[in-house]
Amino acid sequence: MRIAIVNPNTTSSMTDTVVAFAASSARADTTLVGVTPLTGAPSIETHIDEVHGAASVLFEIERLESGPTDGRPDAYVIACFGDTGLPGAREAASGPVVGMTEAALMTAALLAHRFTIITMPARTMEQSDRVVRTLGMGHRVTVRAVDEPVAEVTNGSLHLLELFVAEARRAMTDDHAEAIVLGCAGLADLVEPLTAALGVPVIEGVAAAITLAEGLVAQGLSTSRASTWGRAGGMVS
Amino acid sequence: MRIAIVNPNTTSSMTDTVVAFAASSARADTTLVGVTPLTGAPSIETHIDEVHGAASVLFEIERLESGPTDGRPDAYVIACFGDTGLPGAREAASGPVVGMTEAALMTAALLAHRFTIITMPARTMEQSDRVVRTLGMGHRVTVRAVDEPVAEVTNGSLHLLELFVAEARRAMTDDHAEAIVLGCAGLADLVEPLTAALGVPVIEGVAAAITLAEGLVAQGLSTSRASTWGRAGGMVS
Amino acid sequence: MRIAIVNPNTTSSMTDTVVAFAASSARADTTLVGVTPLTGAPSIETHIDEVHGAASVLFEIERLESGPTDGRPDAYVIACFGDTGLPGAREAASGPVVGMTEAALMTAALLAHRFTIITMPARTMEQSDRVVRTLGMGHRVTVRAVDEPVAEVTNGSLHLLELFVAEARRAMTDDHAEAIVLGCAGLADLVEPLTAALGVPVIEGVAAAITLAEGLVAQGLSTSRASTWGRAGGMVS
Amino acid sequence: MRIAIVNPNTTSSMTDTVVAFAASSARADTTLVGVTPLTGAPSIETHIDEVHGAASVLFEIERLESGPTDGRPDAYVIACFGDTGLPGAREAASGPVVGMTEAALMTAALLAHRFTIITMPARTMEQSDRVVRTLGMGHRVTVRAVDEPVAEVTNGSLHLLELFVAEARRAMTDDHAEAIVLGCAGLADLVEPLTAALGVPVIEGVAAAITLAEGLVAQGLSTSRASTWGRAGGMVS
Amino acid sequence: MRIAIVNPNTTSSMTDTVVAFAASSARADTTLVGVTPLTGAPSIETHIDEVHGAASVLFEIERLESGPTDGRPDAYVIACFGDTGLPGAREAASGPVVGMTEAALMTAALLAHRFTIITMPARTMEQSDRVVRTLGMGHRVTVRAVDEPVAEVTNGSLHLLELFVAEARRAMTDDHAEAIVLGCAGLADLVEPLTAALGVPVIEGVAAAITLAEGLVAQGLSTSRASTWGRAGGMVS
Amino acid sequence: MRIAIVNPNTTSSMTDTVVAFAASSARADTTLVGVTPLTGAPSIETHIDEVHGAASVLFEIERLESGPTDGRPDAYVIACFGDTGLPGAREAASGPVVGMTEAALMTAALLAHRFTIITMPARTMEQSDRVVRTLGMGHRVTVRAVDEPVAEVTNGSLHLLELFVAEARRAMTDDHAEAIVLGCAGLADLVEPLTAALGVPVIEGVAAAITLAEGLVAQGLSTSRASTWGRAGGMVS
Repeated sequence: MRIAIVNPNTTSSMTDTVVAFAASSARADTTLVGVTPLTGAPSIETHIDEVHGAASVLFEIERLESGPTDGRPDAYVIACFGDTGLPGAREAASGPVVGMTEAALMTAALLAHRFTIITMPARTMEQSDRVVRTLGMGHRVTVRAVDEPVAEVTNGSLHLLELFVAEARRAMTDDHAEAIVLGCAGLADLVEPLTAALGVPVIEGVAAAITLAEGLVAQGLSTSRASTWGRAGGMVS
Repeated sequence: MRIAIVNPNTTSSMTDTVVAFAASSARADTTLVGVTPLTGAPSIETHIDEVHGAASVLFEIERLESGPTDGRPDAYVIACFGDTGLPGAREAASGPVVGMTEAALMTAALLAHRFTIITMPARTMEQSDRVVRTLGMGHRVTVRAVDEPVAEVTNGSLHLLELFVAEARRAMTDDHAEAIVLGCAGLADLVEPLTAALGVPVIEGVAAAITLAEGLVAQGLSTSRASTWGRAGGMVS
Repeated sequence: MRIAIVNPNTTSSMTDTVVAFAASSARADTTLVGVTPLTGAPSIETHIDEVHGAASVLFEIERLESGPTDGRPDAYVIACFGDTGLPGAREAASGPVVGMTEAALMTAALLAHRFTIITMPARTMEQSDRVVRTLGMGHRVTVRAVDEPVAEVTNGSLHLLELFVAEARRAMTDDHAEAIVLGCAGLADLVEPLTAALGVPVIEGVAAAITLAEGLVAQGLSTSRASTWGRAGGMVS
Repeated sequence: MRIAIVNPNTTSSMTDTVVAFAASSARADTTLVGVTPLTGAPSIETHIDEVHGAASVLFEIERLESGPTDGRPDAYVIACFGDTGLPGAREAASGPVVGMTEAALMTAALLAHRFTIITMPARTMEQSDRVVRTLGMGHRVTVRAVDEPVAEVTNGSLHLLELFVAEARRAMTDDHAEAIVLGCAGLADLVEPLTAALGVPVIEGVAAAITLAEGLVAQGLSTSRASTWGRAGGMVS
Repeated sequence: MRIAIVNPNTTSSMTDTVVAFAASSARADTTLVGVTPLTGAPSIETHIDEVHGAASVLFEIERLESGPTDGRPDAYVIACFGDTGLPGAREAASGPVVGMTEAALMTAALLAHRFTIITMPARTMEQSDRVVRTLGMGHRVTVRAVDEPVAEVTNGSLHLLELFVAEARRAMTDDHAEAIVLGCAGLADLVEPLTAALGVPVIEGVAAAITLAEGLVAQGLSTSRASTWGRAGGMVS
Repeated sequence: MRIAIVNPNTTSSMTDTVVAFAASSARADTTLVGVTPLTGAPSIETHIDEVHGAASVLFEIERLESGPTDGRPDAYVIACFGDTGLPGAREAASGPVVGMTEAALMTAALLAHRFTIITMPARTMEQSDRVVRTLGMGHRVTVRAVDEPVAEVTNGSLHLLELFVAEARRAMTDDHAEAIVLGCAGLADLVEPLTAALGVPVIEGVAAAITLAEGLVAQGLSTSRASTWGRAGGMVS
């Protein structure tokens, strides 16, 4: 099985980090292909970044879909919190597409009654809220931020551990959080030390999304073409 | 990896059906162990059945957990629509537990904007509603029934195809459903012909749950012990 | 009129306390019958306790229903916060069944715009949330805990007054609570001193449930048998 | 105990009907006092009627509250669907106040998973929606209408039986209603024949409200004065 | 165009303040007519005040509607937080009616993801909640209070600036508010200094409502008479 | 005042239609500037179209913002149902931005208790649902479709009148709609005949949005820069 992890931003070190981390929990026979756009935004922090990121995601998926069949991914994962460009991606891809945010929320809901997303720039809380609302999980999730720029995690995120521990403890005390969702694609380094420090599950969305994508492919399931994500000229007949 | 599929009812043919179906989408290295209680309810239709079913699930999990370590499952799947006994199971099991209903709903939400559960006895719609409400997906899901007793599917469900096609078509027209969730554990036979007839994804919850359970184990994640599902005498310190 | 107050746990002193307290607000012609299971969990704190408690409740109701007609209760009240075993009880009983949690929430909603449940072990907040969600009252209720084991109240709860006053004051200040719901069956002793200390209504759910149960009987109303709680072999004809 | 049933409209025959019906389920020691305003709207159908009705309710309650203490009601019930004037009434009365709509919804929620209000003029559906929304029960209730003027029920409602049976059957089939709430104060005559025709609980809100009001008084509970319904000059100190 | 700004209370200085403030943002060709009832409540703080205020609003609108056609307003604005009397006003007026609260919430939602209402007496928070709930904006709005009597603003509100700044800063920090809605009709003086102090939009509802009312008139739109706000004897034919 | 109406698609005839229609309800001193992208999607039907449309909207706004100050719009309106590209537009523009969908929903909520969006391609219902969900109006709105391609309205929409009348009548009967929102930017021709046929308000979102945009400018209000839509390098200090 071949799964493309599409990073909506142009920072290939972030792609490398998530591919490496996700590899450890992927199926043995899964090939993970990291995809980094050549042009676009270096990080997705603002809503303008999201416009560029969505275009990058779409461009990369269309490129892969129009290439040779044997290199075409069986499924895609969007590796940016907020699931940048997910609706268009679902339409463009022949196989299923899973966003890291929706995957992280679903995974957390299997492990904890209430849980908290800790995102980085405070201004991206709205993007988290958008996914929470789409799924309807507002009664179980709170959103918090450590308010550092995404650029901080280009070369790893371990130096942010203390900030995340502090914010997570506040979530556990004030919001009764029983699990933590890492709200950015570059935070894989934090999973282990944060889990050790907090004693509750810490969820990295790209790894979670790979699992879901693999499962969809294994079950022979893909995006419904009935209406919302029907392919141009290819409705249900 | 070893995953126990716990059937809350005593009908082993239903256990066999779901294990067989789920096997086709499980990881190559996953061992699926079907678990059927010796005593309890032959099917879970009523709320009284659920009381007995939850006790059966708990008994079986406690039995497996207290057995030799090398036979202990890494994760559990509850194979009954409504996720009978899930909260207690989460507490009793050392590994993660996934219900077929929550798994089916999450899977459908990755594939379709709106979708419909088709359950069997109309009186079980409340159990579906309960899971929908726990996740918060009421804005995207409708619940319908073909209103046949669960006993109908003891030896396969193909004879119900026409009824399911008709109800699913009503869901597609009236509720704008773009995917169908099979609302009973014994309906695996219907996945293929129903998909062919409708042209939209048809989701079988046990297969969906295996995927999620495998993913949790692969990611090293298990039920949070912070509070709600803390183990007796073993809170986070 | 004869109303059975079914305690899902085996601690008869807790049954005695709630029966005594509820008696003071019951109708003159109501006979309250406290029912304590002989086997099961000594208190209902965990989800495993709830599985045992639901089985106990069902056993006791089925026992009373199959006894001589003249001793059969006209209605039942479930005397445990979280309304342990309520759905199955509704199915098994010939008369109506009222949970102390749903009764307390309805009563509070008649007296206050926003209000707060104060439960005991923090891990039981999920059980409160479940009832809040079933009724849909999340926009008006918050859930808090003093996080003491239920065993603390086996012989009365007056020694917990200070803790409840402190938590209630936080609810009034931070959540704008205008009434307090006692989130455990053994807290009747607190009603009077807590009311005196806070100056707002303090609601004890068993007493509230007796009122509702009496009213249903007086109005000739019982659980609908149309579908969800239809009796086996006894649907609407 | 003394409970005033305040009819927001000036039609005393409607007051008489609800008092008579409610009497059969009230406590033996309860005195029900029907209160009909001398001036105001003859029926409450429009939002303008509600303005007049709320003023009438307030006038009557203030009149009773300022009268001799021994004639002062222990509690009040608002006998109009939509609970006309309830917030102001709660403030003016020294004892608790219960609306027939909120009481009917709470009662139905104890008996049925999903249920339906059948109101009379279609234009009053918004008033029902308002109470449903205040309680948060939108996921369990639907609102329907037979669209007849309220004047139709001045002298009894039996001639409307066929219309109510037809609408209730649609609710049972299309909305999965398992109980019916009568959406107008003058429909007490319908309870018995409608129950017989449908085989599901039929709830009359004034009777339901009396039960709740009696229970509040018996429990020594009254409207919280903490904030929302604080009395002028009498906040919690 | 002629728009009547109806103050539900009898304090004409408050009417003057809002008319003056709203004038600066109204269309050049709009005539704003301030309407102050001669009798009623001097301020709307309690639910009893609201009953009187609704009657005053209705009386004034009926008076203007029955006057000479050329003096009849094209639209009405209700100038009290909580939109006192809005439903009846909508029915009585031939043109559209806009409440200052609903207008403020809609305006804020165009400018900010999350925002906060700061009302004055804490006891009026329920009135704000009611409008929030009617629109469905609970996921984006919080309600706070500075808890001063409305009488404080009879002669301007500048002396309250410090209190509003402090409360607004708490809203920005704790609730992530990105805009502030002034929760009382007499606070127009605060718009400029509060905006300067906070650096986020500060919304005055009467000015916001004028804009919406003007727009409805310009678009030829008025209250639907289909059902809820149908005029007596004038349903859609 | 200068308001740019940005059409996310490249079909200038649709821009011309909405500008012409909106002009009739705009303020006398407002200059409406229609903006049609040179490259992009000819209509916005799919989620891929939305990616291109959002990029076009952003490109056009950035172009206008970087041009001479005296030609810079005071506000923007997004003229496509679903409010394509709205979040990014809000960030890029110095003045406020209003989407036609949010404007139409707010306008309808001022006129009707329940109302219905009638969109064109059924596959775009999800885009409507997205805006409904963002505002929280799901309890008052239903979404329907006539399921014709957007290209149908390139040269006017009068030929679709019969289809819209039929669907609107279904909305009025089945969903109790009391107003109709036209769910596409090219349907201005239908406002008058549809209003005449139905007798209820028919709302065209671009005209509604102009009103709101004008009002924001007149009140001196613009997008909050506090967090979500902060401008790069320009947070509140």
